[in-house]
Amino acid sequence: MYCFGIDVGGTTVKCGLFQTDGTLVEKWEIPTRKENKGEYILPDVAETIQNKISEKGIDKAEVAGVGVGIPGPINAQGEAACAVNLYWGFRPVAKELSELTGLTAKAGNDANVAALGEAWKGAAAGSQNVIMVTLGTGVGGGIISDGRIVAGAHGAGGEIGHANICHEETAACNCGNSGCLEQYASATGIVRLAKKALAESSEDSVLRNTESIEAKDVLDAFKSGDALAVRVMDEVGEKLGGALGIFAAVVDPDAIVIGGGVSKAGQPLINLIEKHYKKYAFSLCKDTPIVIASLGNDAGIYGAAKMVL
Amino acid sequence: MYCFGIDVGGTTVKCGLFQTDGTLVEKWEIPTRKENKGEYILPDVAETIQNKISEKGIDKAEVAGVGVGIPGPINAQGEAACAVNLYWGFRPVAKELSELTGLTAKAGNDANVAALGEAWKGAAAGSQNVIMVTLGTGVGGGIISDGRIVAGAHGAGGEIGHANICHEETAACNCGNSGCLEQYASATGIVRLAKKALAESSEDSVLRNTESIEAKDVLDAFKSGDALAVRVMDEVGEKLGGALGIFAAVVDPDAIVIGGGVSKAGQPLINLIEKHYKKYAFSLCKDTPIVIASLGNDAGIYGAAKMVL
Repeated sequence: MYCFGIDVGGTTVKCGLFQTDGTLVEKWEIPTRKENKGEYILPDVAETIQNKISEKGIDKAEVAGVGVGIPGPINAQGEAACAVNLYWGFRPVAKELSELTGLTAKAGNDANVAALGEAWKGAAAGSQNVIMVTLGTGVGGGIISDGRIVAGAHGAGGEIGHANICHEETAACNCGNSGCLEQYASATGIVRLAKKALAESSEDSVLRNTESIEAKDVLDAFKSGDALAVRVMDEVGEKLGGALGIFAAVVDPDAIVIGGGVSKAGQPLINLIEKHYKKYAFSLCKDTPIVIASLGNDAGIYGAAKMVL
Repeated sequence: MYCFGIDVGGTTVKCGLFQTDGTLVEKWEIPTRKENKGEYILPDVAETIQNKISEKGIDKAEVAGVGVGIPGPINAQGEAACAVNLYWGFRPVAKELSELTGLTAKAGNDANVAALGEAWKGAAAGSQNVIMVTLGTGVGGGIISDGRIVAGAHGAGGEIGHANICHEETAACNCGNSGCLEQYASATGIVRLAKKALAESSEDSVLRNTESIEAKDVLDAFKSGDALAVRVMDEVGEKLGGALGIFAAVVDPDAIVIGGGVSKAGQPLINLIEKHYKKYAFSLCKDTPIVIASLGNDAGIYGAAKMVL
């Protein structure tokens, strides 16, 4: 038996043909055509699936279905309220894709789907309960409970980047609130905290010699023991570890997966998060493993495929 | 078709015979026998179910199953890690109850099961995604996602009373951490904050004339406009509303249900929580209704029955 996992991004659509045991048979990409309010995207997906089925000589009865990850909130019925990066308004994604392909179809938010991928075949393989946090330009997240995506009422389940964890914050988040996790733990947030620390003291730091500071610079300085960068990252760890402690009291995960560009900092970052997490987590959750995501950009196609199994 | 919903407490076992549409046919109680490490509890439950089946002349084939709520962490497999109030260590509750009754059996943590009850037939009837918070001596909670209990890896899903929301707190929580939601929003927490406020100022307050302050006194003073009590409850609302905002970013509920003794304060309490919740919740979740639980002590038997449907 086979299934398809599709990850729709703003530029390309990543596609995967899987065996239902999770073996990736083949992966490929097609461009995301956003003309006419993105109306070609799902037909393009259906076409590339049909082509692959023909090319491989697969009988449609051998295909369990197709799952798709979408950059925007998707509810449990597989409906998008909106997906601004695709120029979509409301769209019953699963229903449309099922009609276009003649296959069982499921849809989920891309970050939630990536979490399911990591829970299936990635860093948390075999875990039924997972919190995944993606530290990129923003902070995304996905929650898996009993093997299923927590989509929520509006598809905003796992929007942990906008968990408001600091009521004293005066700077505004893109979402309109102030004090969101994203303002501290994203690449953007790390740079913001570093610039603030540099402005607030005249302390020596390798970051003073850096022309245009990026998160990687702060992380490298942290790893090399630069005192100011260590202090900045300790604040990041305190905010992120503390937030993960709260999330763990809600969903009690088997594992916490850290993904996204910032996670390339590796074990020193994990150690930092763990130090603060253990301080604040509920006793039963204190020893929950915190691990780096392992599927990279393929997490989406794995998770999408898993949705239909 | 029928099903049984059982809610095991430290003193009594509440039992309900339901039709599978949610109609409560009959409810009754039996004592919780805790002798010999609580080994009679499940056999007693099986016996009272068998007696009820005989008394009503019900054919066992007409019984969909029996669900049971237990005061302690229960994982998704229906196993108790421990239930200190019943003197239980590890016990595969669902399996044992199924063997004893010859019926399909499910088990869940009592607070999670109560949340399922409120989501099924209570204040959040028909909602698939619910956060329930029970403000009693402590703060309990239960999370329903896509109609199912979020049990978590160790059965600690929904342990939101121990979400650590104030890193500056110096007083210790019963769990060993400092800064848990329970330290502010439980009946005990409200009294603690009131006593602290009274000690920190000489401001006039009706609470100064109260011999032994209980949460109800603080809530009554709050409702009557006593300035100190209003300030105390505003801190409670800030902590609880803020925490609910974080939880909502994790699970995106259709409704938030407030139960427990403190919830008897009614609409003024809801207004207070809502005021702070709206400040901190993610945009998509800001209008999520916050409602008072409606099933009272019956929430557990309703939720337990729903588990097997």
